[in-house]
Amino acid sequence: MSPNENIEQGLEFTPKYDSNGLITAIAQDVETGQILMKAQMNAEALAETISTGRAVYFSRSRQKLWKKGEQSGHVQKVERILVDCDQDCLILKVRVDAGQCHVGYQSCFYRALKKGTDNKLELIAEKVYDPKEAYKNG
Amino acid sequence: MSPNENIEQGLEFTPKYDSNGLITAIAQDVETGQILMKAQMNAEALAETISTGRAVYFSRSRQKLWKKGEQSGHVQKVERILVDCDQDCLILKVRVDAGQCHVGYQSCFYRALKKGTDNKLELIAEKVYDPKEAYKNG
Repeated sequence: MSPNENIEQGLEFTPKYDSNGLITAIAQDVETGQILMKAQMNAEALAETISTGRAVYFSRSRQKLWKKGEQSGHVQKVERILVDCDQDCLILKVRVDAGQCHVGYQSCFYRALKKGTDNKLELIAEKVYDPKEAYKNG
Repeated sequence: MSPNENIEQGLEFTPKYDSNGLITAIAQDVETGQILMKAQMNAEALAETISTGRAVYFSRSRQKLWKKGEQSGHVQKVERILVDCDQDCLILKVRVDAGQCHVGYQSCFYRALKKGTDNKLELIAEKVYDPKEAYKNG
């Protein structure tokens, strides 16, 4: 197989990190199929996710590992890790409790573009917890 | 609201493009919830997606707009566009036919990390079309 075919058709896991050493990871609820969030991982975060079975990301704003839920308690138990054809994106199939987004919603995707507009959003979800309470010691 | 609160809680759509003018878009089957692919959009691709109702991405390898399905026929009819809390990622809820990945699978995520390993993949899907046939005029 050519190098490209190897990446696309092979069974060797060779995650392709970008120039910052990061790869996109999408967390999807293994039960409902709901997409919960999009984050980045570096090699260390991915290794820790695989070894612990809990989602660990890399926080670009804080420039350090981010163990999802270490502060809020809303951890993600990783049941399976999928990779796409060019191996530059991962899906984490996760088992979660209520409230995965720091704003208070189950998913970070709680708004949708309003039909017939190109700049107005509408809420499509309700908050499931009070972030002020969860992060009060933060 | 502070600028940050506006982005997270407001109802104005202000997609946050990266330094290359791109935003991540995830295509998800509106019927099954399956994640089909991850791609990038620039402002022009997003505007065309909104105005035509068909997914248009930006191809980084070809550095031009990529009207999904223009060659393969496997278009994506966009039913809804969701945005996440910090507005740096979109979900396109799409209606599709069989075979969304250029390798021949329904989804680009046709492999999963094998349990107990950190470098071996296993196939989790079967091909739904023959890409050689679909791209023969490409």
